[in-house]
Amino acid sequence: MIVSTTLNELNQQLKQRRRQFPDEKIGLVPTMGFLHDGHASMMKRAKEECGYVVLSVFVNPLQFGPNEDFDRYPRDRERDTAIAENNGIDLLFMPSLEEMYPKKPLTKVLISEVTERLCGASRPGHFDGVGTVVSKLFNLIRPDRAYFGMKDAQQVAVVERMVFDLNIPVEIVRCQTLREFDGLAMSSRNVFLNEGERAQAVILFKALEQAEGWITEPGMTAPELKKRLNAFIGQAPLAEIDYAELLEYPDLSEPGADMELKNYPHALIIALAVKFGKTRLIDNRIVEPYGGA
Amino acid sequence: MIVSTTLNELNQQLKQRRRQFPDEKIGLVPTMGFLHDGHASMMKRAKEECGYVVLSVFVNPLQFGPNEDFDRYPRDRERDTAIAENNGIDLLFMPSLEEMYPKKPLTKVLISEVTERLCGASRPGHFDGVGTVVSKLFNLIRPDRAYFGMKDAQQVAVVERMVFDLNIPVEIVRCQTLREFDGLAMSSRNVFLNEGERAQAVILFKALEQAEGWITEPGMTAPELKKRLNAFIGQAPLAEIDYAELLEYPDLSEPGADMELKNYPHALIIALAVKFGKTRLIDNRIVEPYGGA
Repeated sequence: MIVSTTLNELNQQLKQRRRQFPDEKIGLVPTMGFLHDGHASMMKRAKEECGYVVLSVFVNPLQFGPNEDFDRYPRDRERDTAIAENNGIDLLFMPSLEEMYPKKPLTKVLISEVTERLCGASRPGHFDGVGTVVSKLFNLIRPDRAYFGMKDAQQVAVVERMVFDLNIPVEIVRCQTLREFDGLAMSSRNVFLNEGERAQAVILFKALEQAEGWITEPGMTAPELKKRLNAFIGQAPLAEIDYAELLEYPDLSEPGADMELKNYPHALIIALAVKFGKTRLIDNRIVEPYGGA
Repeated sequence: MIVSTTLNELNQQLKQRRRQFPDEKIGLVPTMGFLHDGHASMMKRAKEECGYVVLSVFVNPLQFGPNEDFDRYPRDRERDTAIAENNGIDLLFMPSLEEMYPKKPLTKVLISEVTERLCGASRPGHFDGVGTVVSKLFNLIRPDRAYFGMKDAQQVAVVERMVFDLNIPVEIVRCQTLREFDGLAMSSRNVFLNEGERAQAVILFKALEQAEGWITEPGMTAPELKKRLNAFIGQAPLAEIDYAELLEYPDLSEPGADMELKNYPHALIIALAVKFGKTRLIDNRIVEPYGGA
Protein backbone atom coordinates (compact mmCIF):
# COMPACT_ATOMS: atom_id res chain seq x y z
CA MET A 1 0.00 0.00 0.00
CA ILE A 2 1.19 3.48 -0.93
CA VAL A 3 0.61 6.30 1.57
CA SER A 4 0.42 9.81 0.12
CA THR A 5 0.26 12.85 2.35
CA THR A 6 0.65 15.52 -0.35
CA LEU A 7 -1.34 16.34 -3.47
CA ASN A 8 1.82 15.99 -5.53
CA GLU A 9 2.53 12.45 -4.34
CA LEU A 10 -1.11 11.49 -4.87
CA ASN A 11 -1.06 12.92 -8.36
CA GLN A 12 2.18 11.14 -9.28
CA GLN A 13 0.86 7.80 -8.02
CA LEU A 14 -2.44 8.08 -9.86
CA LYS A 15 -0.80 9.26 -13.07
CA GLN A 16 1.59 6.33 -13.07
CA ARG A 17 -1.15 3.86 -12.27
CA ARG A 18 -3.45 5.23 -14.98
CA ARG A 19 -0.66 5.05 -17.53
CA GLN A 20 0.06 1.42 -16.59
CA PHE A 21 -3.58 0.28 -16.39
CA PRO A 22 -5.69 2.64 -18.51
CA ASP A 23 -8.84 0.48 -18.38
CA GLU A 24 -8.81 -0.16 -14.66
CA LYS A 25 -11.67 1.21 -12.54
CA ILE A 26 -10.57 3.43 -9.68
CA GLY A 27 -12.64 3.37 -6.50
CA LEU A 28 -12.65 5.99 -3.75
CA VAL A 29 -13.72 5.50 -0.15
CA PRO A 30 -13.76 8.99 1.37
CA THR A 31 -13.63 8.97 5.20
CA MET A 32 -12.75 11.10 8.21
CA GLY A 33 -10.71 8.21 9.59
CA PHE A 34 -10.90 6.47 12.98
CA LEU A 35 -11.95 3.55 10.86
CA HIS A 36 -14.38 0.89 12.04
CA ASP A 37 -15.96 -2.22 10.50
CA GLY A 38 -18.45 -0.06 8.61
CA HIS A 39 -15.57 1.56 6.74
CA ALA A 40 -13.90 -1.83 6.30
CA SER A 41 -16.99 -3.23 4.61
CA MET A 42 -16.95 -0.29 2.16
CA MET A 43 -13.28 -0.88 1.41
CA LYS A 44 -13.94 -4.57 0.75
CA ARG A 45 -16.82 -3.79 -1.55
CA ALA A 46 -14.76 -1.18 -3.41
CA LYS A 47 -11.96 -3.69 -3.81
CA GLU A 48 -14.39 -6.26 -5.25
CA GLU A 49 -15.74 -3.77 -7.76
CA CYS A 50 -12.62 -1.76 -8.71
CA GLY A 51 -9.10 -2.68 -9.74
CA TYR A 52 -7.53 0.10 -7.67
CA VAL A 53 -8.93 1.57 -4.47
CA VAL A 54 -8.04 4.87 -2.82
CA LEU A 55 -8.99 5.50 0.80
CA SER A 56 -8.96 9.12 1.87
CA VAL A 57 -8.67 10.04 5.55
CA PHE A 58 -9.27 13.70 6.20
CA VAL A 59 -11.15 15.41 9.01
CA ASN A 60 -12.59 18.32 7.05
CA PRO A 61 -12.94 21.46 9.18
CA LEU A 62 -15.32 23.04 6.65
CA GLN A 63 -18.10 20.62 7.56
CA PHE A 64 -17.95 21.30 11.31
CA GLY A 65 -19.79 24.20 12.91
CA PRO A 66 -17.94 26.54 15.30
CA ASN A 67 -19.43 24.77 18.33
CA GLU A 68 -19.09 21.25 17.00
CA ASP A 69 -16.54 18.53 17.69
CA PHE A 70 -13.83 19.19 15.07
CA ASP A 71 -11.09 19.39 17.69
CA ARG A 72 -12.16 16.36 19.66
CA TYR A 73 -13.14 14.24 16.63
CA PRO A 74 -11.21 10.97 17.19
CA ARG A 75 -8.04 10.47 15.14
CA ASP A 76 -5.59 7.56 14.95
CA ARG A 77 -3.38 7.57 11.87
CA GLU A 78 -1.43 4.45 12.79
CA ARG A 79 -4.49 2.35 13.41
CA ASP A 80 -6.16 3.71 10.26
CA THR A 81 -3.08 2.84 8.20
CA ALA A 82 -3.11 -0.73 9.50
CA ILE A 83 -6.84 -1.16 8.82
CA ALA A 84 -6.47 0.25 5.31
CA GLU A 85 -3.61 -2.12 4.57
CA ASN A 86 -5.55 -5.10 5.96
CA ASN A 87 -8.50 -4.31 3.73
CA GLY A 88 -6.61 -4.23 0.46
CA ILE A 89 -6.41 -0.47 -0.03
CA ASP A 90 -3.96 0.40 -2.81
CA LEU A 91 -3.44 4.06 -2.01
CA LEU A 92 -4.06 5.77 1.31
CA PHE A 93 -4.44 9.53 0.95
CA MET A 94 -3.94 11.34 4.26
CA PRO A 95 -3.41 15.02 3.52
CA SER A 96 -2.73 17.72 6.07
CA LEU A 97 -4.99 20.73 6.49
CA GLU A 98 -2.38 22.86 4.71
CA GLU A 99 -2.35 20.55 1.70
CA MET A 100 -6.11 20.64 1.34
CA TYR A 101 -6.56 24.33 2.16
CA PRO A 102 -3.28 26.14 1.34
CA LYS A 103 -5.20 29.44 1.00
CA LYS A 104 -8.43 30.53 2.62
CA PRO A 105 -11.00 28.75 0.41
CA LEU A 106 -13.19 31.25 -1.46
CA THR A 107 -15.09 28.63 -3.45
CA LYS A 108 -18.01 26.68 -2.05
CA VAL A 109 -20.22 24.06 -3.61
CA LEU A 110 -23.69 24.68 -2.23
CA ILE A 111 -26.62 22.34 -2.61
CA SER A 112 -30.10 23.66 -1.74
CA GLU A 113 -33.42 22.00 -0.88
CA VAL A 114 -32.08 18.49 -0.05
CA THR A 115 -29.96 20.21 2.61
CA GLU A 116 -32.79 22.16 4.25
CA ARG A 117 -34.03 19.52 6.67
CA LEU A 118 -32.51 16.96 9.10
CA CYS A 119 -28.76 17.47 9.60
CA GLY A 120 -28.82 20.44 7.22
CA ALA A 121 -31.15 22.23 9.63
CA SER A 122 -29.37 21.08 12.80
CA ARG A 123 -25.88 21.76 11.49
CA PRO A 124 -25.91 24.99 9.41
CA GLY A 125 -23.16 25.00 6.80
CA HIS A 126 -22.38 21.29 7.30
CA PHE A 127 -23.38 20.21 3.80
CA ASP A 128 -21.64 23.21 2.21
CA GLY A 129 -18.46 21.80 3.72
CA VAL A 130 -19.33 18.29 2.54
CA GLY A 131 -20.10 19.41 -1.03
CA THR A 132 -16.88 21.38 -1.19
CA VAL A 133 -14.54 18.71 0.16
CA VAL A 134 -16.16 15.91 -1.85
CA SER A 135 -15.74 18.05 -4.98
CA LYS A 136 -12.07 18.51 -4.13
CA LEU A 137 -11.52 14.80 -3.53
CA PHE A 138 -13.31 13.90 -6.77
CA ASN A 139 -11.14 16.37 -8.70
CA LEU A 140 -7.94 15.17 -7.06
CA ILE A 141 -8.59 11.45 -7.47
CA ARG A 142 -11.06 11.31 -10.39
CA PRO A 143 -12.50 7.97 -9.28
CA ASP A 144 -14.90 5.96 -11.42
CA ARG A 145 -16.87 4.99 -8.32
CA ALA A 146 -17.13 6.50 -4.85
CA TYR A 147 -18.47 4.63 -1.84
CA PHE A 148 -20.62 6.34 0.77
CA GLY A 149 -22.24 4.84 3.85
CA MET A 150 -26.01 5.00 4.19
CA LYS A 151 -25.76 5.87 7.88
CA ASP A 152 -25.30 9.37 6.47
CA ALA A 153 -28.29 8.99 4.15
CA GLN A 154 -28.75 12.72 3.73
CA GLN A 155 -25.08 13.05 2.77
CA VAL A 156 -25.64 10.39 0.10
CA ALA A 157 -28.68 12.29 -1.20
CA VAL A 158 -26.73 15.55 -1.26
CA VAL A 159 -23.70 14.05 -3.02
CA GLU A 160 -25.92 12.25 -5.55
CA ARG A 161 -27.70 15.50 -6.36
CA MET A 162 -24.42 17.42 -6.65
CA VAL A 163 -23.04 14.77 -9.01
CA PHE A 164 -26.20 14.97 -11.11
CA ASP A 165 -26.36 18.76 -11.22
CA LEU A 166 -22.67 19.30 -11.99
CA ASN A 167 -22.30 16.31 -14.36
CA ILE A 168 -19.52 14.88 -12.24
CA PRO A 169 -18.35 11.65 -13.91
CA VAL A 170 -18.43 9.53 -10.74
CA GLU A 171 -20.80 6.71 -9.86
CA ILE A 172 -22.01 7.03 -6.26
CA VAL A 173 -22.33 3.64 -4.54
CA ARG A 174 -24.67 3.47 -1.55
CA CYS A 175 -23.25 1.17 1.17
CA GLN A 176 -25.29 -0.46 3.91
CA THR A 177 -24.89 0.64 7.51
CA LEU A 178 -23.00 -1.83 9.68
CA ARG A 179 -24.22 -2.39 13.24
CA GLU A 180 -22.92 -3.53 16.60
CA PHE A 181 -24.25 -6.76 18.18
CA ASP A 182 -27.27 -4.93 19.62
CA GLY A 183 -28.11 -2.90 16.51
CA LEU A 184 -26.30 0.39 17.27
CA ALA A 185 -25.04 1.83 13.97
CA MET A 186 -21.26 1.82 13.78
CA SER A 187 -19.80 5.32 14.04
CA SER A 188 -16.45 6.81 14.91
CA ARG A 189 -18.26 8.89 17.50
CA ASN A 190 -19.47 5.82 19.45
CA VAL A 191 -16.17 5.86 21.40
CA PHE A 192 -17.39 8.98 23.17
CA LEU A 193 -20.33 7.17 24.81
CA ASN A 194 -19.97 6.23 28.47
CA GLU A 195 -21.33 2.91 29.68
CA GLY A 196 -24.80 4.21 30.53
CA GLU A 197 -25.11 6.15 27.28
CA ARG A 198 -23.86 3.19 25.28
CA ALA A 199 -26.51 0.94 26.81
CA GLN A 200 -29.30 3.37 25.95
CA ALA A 201 -27.98 4.32 22.49
CA VAL A 202 -29.61 1.20 21.05
CA ILE A 203 -32.92 3.07 21.33
CA LEU A 204 -32.27 4.54 17.84
CA PHE A 205 -32.14 1.12 16.24
CA LYS A 206 -35.15 -0.10 18.22
CA ALA A 207 -37.13 2.98 17.22
CA LEU A 208 -36.38 2.34 13.54
CA GLU A 209 -37.49 -1.28 13.90
CA GLN A 210 -40.73 -0.17 15.53
CA ALA A 211 -41.39 2.58 13.02
CA GLU A 212 -41.01 0.24 10.08
CA GLY A 213 -43.87 -1.78 11.54
CA TRP A 214 -46.03 1.26 12.34
CA ILE A 215 -45.84 2.44 8.72
CA THR A 216 -47.79 -0.63 7.62
CA GLU A 217 -50.69 0.07 10.01
CA PRO A 218 -53.89 1.16 8.27
CA GLY A 219 -54.45 4.90 8.57
CA MET A 220 -50.93 5.67 9.81
CA THR A 221 -49.79 9.18 8.81
CA ALA A 222 -46.49 11.04 9.11
CA PRO A 223 -47.50 13.25 12.07
CA GLU A 224 -48.75 10.23 14.05
CA LEU A 225 -45.60 8.27 13.23
CA LYS A 226 -43.37 11.12 14.37
CA LYS A 227 -45.35 11.42 17.61
CA ARG A 228 -44.83 7.72 18.29
CA LEU A 229 -41.13 7.94 17.43
CA ASN A 230 -40.62 10.79 19.86
CA ALA A 231 -42.50 8.99 22.64
CA PHE A 232 -40.58 5.77 21.99
CA ILE A 233 -37.13 7.40 22.08
CA GLY A 234 -38.23 9.35 25.16
CA GLN A 235 -38.18 6.06 27.06
CA ALA A 236 -34.38 6.33 27.18
CA PRO A 237 -33.78 8.87 29.95
CA LEU A 238 -30.35 9.96 28.59
CA ALA A 239 -31.65 10.52 25.04
CA GLU A 240 -32.10 14.11 23.91
CA ILE A 241 -33.86 14.13 20.54
CA ASP A 242 -32.46 16.49 17.89
CA TYR A 243 -34.90 15.25 15.25
CA ALA A 244 -37.09 12.23 14.52
CA GLU A 245 -38.43 12.71 11.02
CA LEU A 246 -40.18 10.96 8.19
CA LEU A 247 -39.41 12.30 4.71
CA GLU A 248 -39.33 11.18 1.10
CA TYR A 249 -35.98 9.84 -0.04
CA PRO A 250 -33.72 10.92 -1.69
CA ASP A 251 -35.35 14.32 -2.30
CA LEU A 252 -36.13 14.76 1.43
CA SER A 253 -39.43 16.54 0.91
CA GLU A 254 -42.23 16.35 3.47
CA PRO A 255 -44.94 13.75 2.79
CA GLY A 256 -48.52 15.03 2.88
CA ALA A 257 -49.66 15.17 6.53
CA ASP A 258 -52.91 13.33 5.86
CA MET A 259 -51.57 10.74 3.44
CA GLU A 260 -51.70 7.13 4.53
CA LEU A 261 -48.16 5.77 4.66
CA LYS A 262 -49.09 2.14 4.03
CA ASN A 263 -49.12 2.43 0.23
CA TYR A 264 -47.14 5.65 -0.05
CA PRO A 265 -45.99 5.89 -3.70
CA HIS A 266 -42.43 6.98 -2.94
CA ALA A 267 -39.50 5.72 -0.87
CA LEU A 268 -39.51 7.15 2.65
CA ILE A 269 -36.75 7.68 5.17
CA ILE A 270 -37.16 7.46 8.91
CA ALA A 271 -34.30 9.64 10.12
CA LEU A 272 -33.10 10.12 13.68
CA ALA A 273 -30.56 12.34 15.40
CA VAL A 274 -30.28 11.91 19.14
CA LYS A 275 -27.78 13.31 21.60
CA PHE A 276 -26.40 11.35 24.52
CA GLY A 277 -24.48 13.83 26.62
CA LYS A 278 -22.19 15.64 24.18
CA THR A 279 -22.36 12.87 21.59
CA ARG A 280 -24.80 13.23 18.72
CA LEU A 281 -25.76 9.96 17.00
CA ILE A 282 -27.68 9.56 13.76
CA ASP A 283 -29.38 6.58 12.19
CA ASN A 284 -32.06 5.95 9.59
CA ARG A 285 -34.04 3.41 7.68
CA ILE A 286 -35.38 3.65 4.17
CA VAL A 287 -38.71 1.95 3.50
CA GLU A 288 -40.54 1.47 0.27
CA PRO A 289 -44.18 1.01 1.27
CA TYR A 290 -45.33 0.47 -2.31
CA GLY A 291 -43.01 -2.50 -2.59
CA GLY A 292 -39.87 -0.95 -4.04
CA ALA A 293 -38.92 0.93 -7.18
CA MET B 1 -15.77 18.20 -37.30
CA ILE B 2 -18.19 16.33 -35.08
CA VAL B 3 -21.21 18.23 -33.76
CA SER B 4 -22.71 16.92 -30.51
CA THR B 5 -25.94 18.31 -29.15
CA THR B 6 -26.46 15.81 -26.32
CA LEU B 7 -24.34 14.82 -23.32
CA ASN B 8 -24.47 11.21 -24.49
CA GLU B 9 -23.05 11.97 -27.92
CA LEU B 10 -20.37 14.18 -26.38
CA ASN B 11 -19.44 11.46 -23.94
CA GLN B 12 -19.25 8.79 -26.62
CA GLN B 13 -17.05 10.94 -28.83
CA LEU B 14 -14.64 11.84 -26.03
CA LYS B 15 -14.45 8.27 -24.75
CA GLN B 16 -13.60 6.97 -28.19
CA ARG B 17 -11.03 9.69 -28.80
CA ARG B 18 -9.38 9.15 -25.42
CA ARG B 19 -9.16 5.43 -26.03
CA GLN B 20 -7.54 6.01 -29.43
CA PHE B 21 -5.14 8.76 -28.32
CA PRO B 22 -4.60 8.42 -24.59
CA ASP B 23 -1.70 10.87 -24.45
CA GLU B 24 -3.32 13.62 -26.48
CA LYS B 25 -4.06 16.96 -24.81
CA ILE B 26 -7.68 18.03 -24.99
CA GLY B 27 -8.41 21.76 -25.19
CA LEU B 28 -11.72 23.45 -24.44
CA VAL B 29 -12.86 26.85 -25.69
CA PRO B 30 -16.08 27.60 -23.79
CA THR B 31 -18.23 30.28 -25.45
CA MET B 32 -21.76 31.62 -25.64
CA GLY B 33 -21.56 31.54 -29.44
CA PHE B 34 -22.14 34.29 -31.99
CA LEU B 35 -18.48 33.81 -32.65
CA HIS B 36 -16.14 36.59 -33.71
CA ASP B 37 -12.42 36.89 -34.45
CA GLY B 38 -11.64 36.99 -30.72
CA HIS B 39 -13.10 33.50 -30.38
CA ALA B 40 -11.33 32.41 -33.57
CA SER B 41 -7.97 33.45 -32.16
CA MET B 42 -8.64 31.35 -29.05
CA MET B 43 -9.58 28.35 -31.21
CA LYS B 44 -6.40 28.73 -33.22
CA ARG B 45 -4.27 28.95 -30.11
CA ALA B 46 -6.00 25.92 -28.59
CA LYS B 47 -5.41 23.98 -31.80
CA GLU B 48 -1.70 24.88 -31.72
CA GLU B 49 -1.34 23.72 -28.12
CA CYS B 50 -3.69 20.70 -28.00
CA GLY B 51 -4.19 17.64 -30.18
CA TYR B 52 -7.97 17.77 -29.91
CA VAL B 53 -10.08 20.87 -29.40
CA VAL B 54 -13.66 21.11 -28.18
CA LEU B 55 -15.65 24.30 -28.70
CA SER B 56 -18.74 24.67 -26.55
CA VAL B 57 -21.52 27.03 -27.56
CA PHE B 58 -24.12 27.52 -24.85
CA VAL B 59 -25.92 30.66 -23.74
CA ASN B 60 -26.14 29.90 -20.04
CA PRO B 61 -29.29 31.34 -18.46
CA LEU B 62 -27.82 30.97 -14.94
CA GLN B 63 -25.35 33.79 -15.53
CA PHE B 64 -27.95 36.32 -16.69
CA GLY B 65 -29.93 38.43 -14.24
CA PRO B 66 -33.74 38.62 -14.56
CA ASN B 67 -33.51 42.04 -16.27
CA GLU B 68 -30.51 41.21 -18.45
CA ASP B 69 -30.27 40.26 -22.11
CA PHE B 70 -30.57 36.45 -22.04
CA ASP B 71 -33.47 36.45 -24.50
CA ARG B 72 -31.98 38.92 -26.91
CA TYR B 73 -28.38 37.64 -26.66
CA PRO B 74 -27.40 37.07 -30.32
CA ARG B 75 -27.43 33.48 -31.57
CA ASP B 76 -26.50 31.98 -34.95
CA ARG B 77 -25.87 28.25 -34.88
CA GLU B 78 -25.16 27.91 -38.60
CA ARG B 79 -22.60 30.67 -38.70
CA ASP B 80 -21.00 29.39 -35.47
CA THR B 81 -20.75 25.89 -36.96
CA ALA B 82 -19.01 27.23 -40.06
CA ILE B 83 -16.56 29.34 -38.03
CA ALA B 84 -15.77 26.39 -35.75
CA GLU B 85 -15.10 24.17 -38.74
CA ASN B 86 -12.91 26.82 -40.40
CA ASN B 87 -10.81 27.13 -37.27
CA GLY B 88 -9.94 23.48 -36.91
CA ILE B 89 -12.35 22.57 -34.10
CA ASP B 90 -12.58 18.79 -33.68
CA LEU B 91 -15.77 18.64 -31.65
CA LEU B 92 -18.46 21.29 -31.45
CA PHE B 93 -20.67 20.86 -28.36
CA MET B 94 -23.97 22.74 -28.70
CA PRO B 95 -26.32 21.43 -26.04
CA SER B 96 -29.92 22.53 -25.52
CA LEU B 97 -31.11 24.05 -22.26
CA GLU B 98 -32.82 20.76 -21.43
CA GLU B 99 -29.58 18.80 -21.86
CA MET B 100 -27.66 21.12 -19.56
CA TYR B 101 -30.42 21.61 -16.98
CA PRO B 102 -32.78 18.60 -17.16
CA LYS B 103 -33.92 19.30 -13.59
CA LYS B 104 -34.00 22.56 -11.67
CA PRO B 105 -30.34 22.90 -10.63
CA LEU B 106 -29.97 22.77 -6.83
CA THR B 107 -26.17 22.91 -6.86
CA LYS B 108 -24.22 26.12 -7.23
CA VAL B 109 -20.51 26.79 -7.26
CA LEU B 110 -20.04 30.09 -5.46
CA ILE B 111 -16.83 32.06 -5.37
CA SER B 112 -16.56 34.91 -2.87
CA GLU B 113 -14.30 38.00 -2.58
CA VAL B 114 -13.01 38.05 -6.20
CA THR B 115 -16.67 38.35 -7.22
CA GLU B 116 -17.55 41.25 -4.94
CA ARG B 117 -16.50 44.14 -7.16
CA LEU B 118 -16.82 45.12 -10.85
CA CYS B 119 -19.24 42.88 -12.76
CA GLY B 120 -19.91 40.87 -9.60
CA ALA B 121 -21.35 44.02 -8.01
CA SER B 122 -23.18 45.22 -11.15
CA ARG B 123 -24.58 41.80 -12.03
CA PRO B 124 -25.62 39.98 -8.83
CA GLY B 125 -25.50 36.21 -9.27
CA HIS B 126 -23.63 36.45 -12.57
CA PHE B 127 -20.48 34.71 -11.36
CA ASP B 128 -22.46 32.05 -9.49
CA GLY B 129 -23.86 31.12 -12.90
CA VAL B 130 -20.39 31.25 -14.46
CA GLY B 131 -18.82 29.06 -11.75
CA THR B 132 -21.62 26.54 -12.04
CA VAL B 133 -21.66 26.20 -15.83
CA VAL B 134 -17.87 26.17 -16.12
CA SER B 135 -17.79 23.38 -13.50
CA LYS B 136 -20.33 21.45 -15.55
CA LEU B 137 -18.38 21.90 -18.79
CA PHE B 138 -15.13 20.88 -17.10
CA ASN B 139 -16.79 17.74 -15.72
CA LEU B 140 -18.41 16.87 -19.04
CA ILE B 141 -15.32 17.40 -21.19
CA ARG B 142 -12.45 17.00 -18.72
CA PRO B 143 -10.09 19.14 -20.80
CA ASP B 144 -6.39 19.46 -20.04
CA ARG B 145 -6.51 23.14 -20.93
CA ALA B 146 -9.32 25.67 -21.14
CA TYR B 147 -9.06 28.96 -23.00
CA PHE B 148 -10.66 32.13 -21.66
CA GLY B 149 -10.55 35.63 -23.13
CA MET B 150 -9.05 38.42 -21.07
CA LYS B 151 -11.80 40.83 -22.11
CA ASP B 152 -13.63 39.13 -19.25
CA ALA B 153 -10.67 39.53 -16.91
CA GLN B 154 -12.76 39.13 -13.77
CA GLN B 155 -14.20 35.90 -15.16
CA VAL B 156 -10.65 34.64 -15.68
CA ALA B 157 -9.76 35.57 -12.09
CA VAL B 158 -12.89 33.84 -10.78
CA VAL B 159 -12.35 30.67 -12.80
CA GLU B 160 -8.66 30.54 -11.84
CA ARG B 161 -9.57 30.82 -8.16
CA MET B 162 -12.29 28.16 -8.46
CA VAL B 163 -9.84 25.81 -10.17
CA PHE B 164 -7.30 26.41 -7.42
CA ASP B 165 -9.75 26.03 -4.53
CA LEU B 166 -11.46 22.91 -5.87
CA ASN B 167 -8.29 21.27 -7.24
CA ILE B 168 -9.81 21.05 -10.71
CA PRO B 169 -7.23 19.39 -12.99
CA VAL B 170 -7.50 21.97 -15.79
CA GLU B 171 -4.93 24.54 -16.88
CA ILE B 172 -6.55 27.93 -17.48
CA VAL B 173 -5.04 29.74 -20.46
CA ARG B 174 -5.48 33.52 -20.53
CA CYS B 175 -6.08 34.77 -24.10
CA GLN B 176 -5.51 38.32 -25.29
CA THR B 177 -8.44 40.53 -26.21
CA LEU B 178 -8.87 41.07 -29.95
CA ARG B 179 -9.86 44.53 -31.14
CA GLU B 180 -11.58 46.19 -34.07
CA PHE B 181 -9.61 48.57 -36.36
CA ASP B 182 -10.21 51.48 -33.95
CA GLY B 183 -9.46 49.61 -30.74
CA LEU B 184 -12.98 48.56 -29.66
CA ALA B 185 -12.74 45.17 -27.94
CA MET B 186 -14.47 42.44 -29.96
CA SER B 187 -17.68 41.27 -28.35
CA SER B 188 -20.78 39.44 -29.49
CA ARG B 189 -22.77 42.32 -28.04
CA ASN B 190 -21.18 44.88 -30.41
CA VAL B 191 -23.87 44.04 -33.00
CA PHE B 192 -26.40 45.82 -30.79
CA LEU B 193 -24.66 49.21 -31.17
CA ASN B 194 -26.22 51.69 -33.58
CA GLU B 195 -23.97 53.86 -35.71
CA GLY B 196 -23.68 56.70 -33.22
CA GLU B 197 -23.03 54.35 -30.28
CA ARG B 198 -20.51 52.37 -32.29
CA ALA B 199 -18.57 55.53 -33.11
CA GLN B 200 -18.41 56.56 -29.44
CA ALA B 201 -17.75 53.06 -28.06
CA VAL B 202 -14.05 53.46 -28.82
CA ILE B 203 -13.91 55.72 -25.75
CA LEU B 204 -13.29 52.61 -23.60
CA PHE B 205 -10.13 51.73 -25.49
CA LYS B 206 -8.96 55.33 -25.52
CA ALA B 207 -9.55 55.64 -21.79
CA LEU B 208 -7.43 52.53 -21.14
CA GLU B 209 -4.63 53.94 -23.29
CA GLN B 210 -4.74 57.21 -21.39
CA ALA B 211 -4.91 55.54 -17.98
CA GLU B 212 -1.88 53.41 -18.67
CA GLY B 213 0.07 56.65 -19.15
CA TRP B 214 -1.42 58.34 -16.10
CA ILE B 215 -0.31 55.48 -13.85
CA THR B 216 3.33 56.35 -14.55
CA GLU B 217 2.92 59.98 -13.43
CA PRO B 218 4.68 60.80 -10.16
CA GLY B 219 2.22 61.00 -7.27
CA MET B 220 -0.66 59.41 -9.17
CA THR B 221 -3.07 57.53 -6.84
CA ALA B 222 -6.08 55.30 -7.43
CA PRO B 223 -8.73 57.90 -6.50
CA GLU B 224 -7.17 60.50 -8.81
CA LEU B 225 -6.89 57.97 -11.64
CA LYS B 226 -10.53 56.97 -11.28
CA LYS B 227 -11.58 60.63 -11.31
CA ARG B 228 -9.69 61.16 -14.55
CA LEU B 229 -11.13 57.99 -16.09
CA ASN B 230 -14.67 59.11 -15.31
CA ALA B 231 -14.06 62.57 -16.73
CA PHE B 232 -12.43 61.14 -19.85
CA ILE B 233 -15.25 58.67 -20.61
CA GLY B 234 -17.75 61.44 -19.86
CA GLN B 235 -16.58 63.14 -23.07
CA ALA B 236 -18.66 60.60 -25.02
CA PRO B 237 -22.21 61.92 -24.65
CA LEU B 238 -23.85 58.51 -25.20
CA ALA B 239 -21.64 56.75 -22.60
CA GLU B 240 -23.27 55.87 -19.28
CA ILE B 241 -20.56 54.61 -16.89
CA ASP B 242 -21.38 51.50 -14.85
CA TYR B 243 -17.89 51.38 -13.31
CA ALA B 244 -14.39 52.67 -13.99
CA GLU B 245 -12.13 51.01 -11.46
CA LEU B 246 -8.53 50.35 -10.58
CA LEU B 247 -7.90 47.16 -8.59
CA GLU B 248 -5.18 44.62 -7.95
CA TYR B 249 -5.25 41.65 -10.29
CA PRO B 250 -6.15 38.81 -10.06
CA ASP B 251 -7.37 39.11 -6.46
CA LEU B 252 -9.35 42.30 -7.26
CA SER B 253 -8.70 43.98 -3.95
CA GLU B 254 -8.63 47.75 -3.58
CA PRO B 255 -5.19 49.38 -3.70
CA GLY B 256 -4.35 51.76 -0.85
CA ALA B 257 -5.94 55.15 -1.63
CA ASP B 258 -2.77 57.09 -0.88
CA MET B 259 -0.28 54.72 -2.49
CA GLU B 260 1.64 55.97 -5.48
CA LEU B 261 0.77 53.77 -8.48
CA LYS B 262 4.04 54.31 -10.35
CA ASN B 263 5.95 51.58 -8.50
CA TYR B 264 2.99 49.68 -7.16
CA PRO B 265 4.26 46.22 -6.09
CA HIS B 266 1.39 44.24 -7.59
CA ALA B 267 -0.29 43.88 -10.99
CA LEU B 268 -3.20 46.29 -11.42
CA ILE B 269 -6.28 46.17 -13.60
CA ILE B 270 -7.99 49.19 -15.08
CA ALA B 271 -11.52 47.87 -15.59
CA LEU B 272 -14.39 49.59 -17.37
CA ALA B 273 -18.08 48.84 -17.88
CA VAL B 274 -19.99 51.42 -19.89
CA LYS B 275 -23.50 51.34 -21.28
CA PHE B 276 -24.44 52.70 -24.69
CA GLY B 277 -28.21 52.65 -24.82
CA LYS B 278 -29.18 49.13 -23.75
CA THR B 279 -25.78 47.67 -24.59
CA ARG B 280 -23.27 47.22 -21.81
CA LEU B 281 -19.64 46.98 -22.92
CA ILE B 282 -16.65 46.00 -20.82
CA ASP B 283 -12.93 46.33 -21.38
CA ASN B 284 -9.79 46.36 -19.26
CA ARG B 285 -6.06 46.59 -19.23
CA ILE B 286 -3.64 44.94 -16.86
CA VAL B 287 -0.51 46.90 -15.97
CA GLU B 288 2.50 45.85 -13.95
CA PRO B 289 4.00 49.11 -12.69
CA TYR B 290 6.88 47.34 -10.95
CA GLY B 291 7.98 45.86 -14.26
CA GLY B 292 6.18 42.53 -14.28
CA ALA B 293 6.24 39.33 -12.24
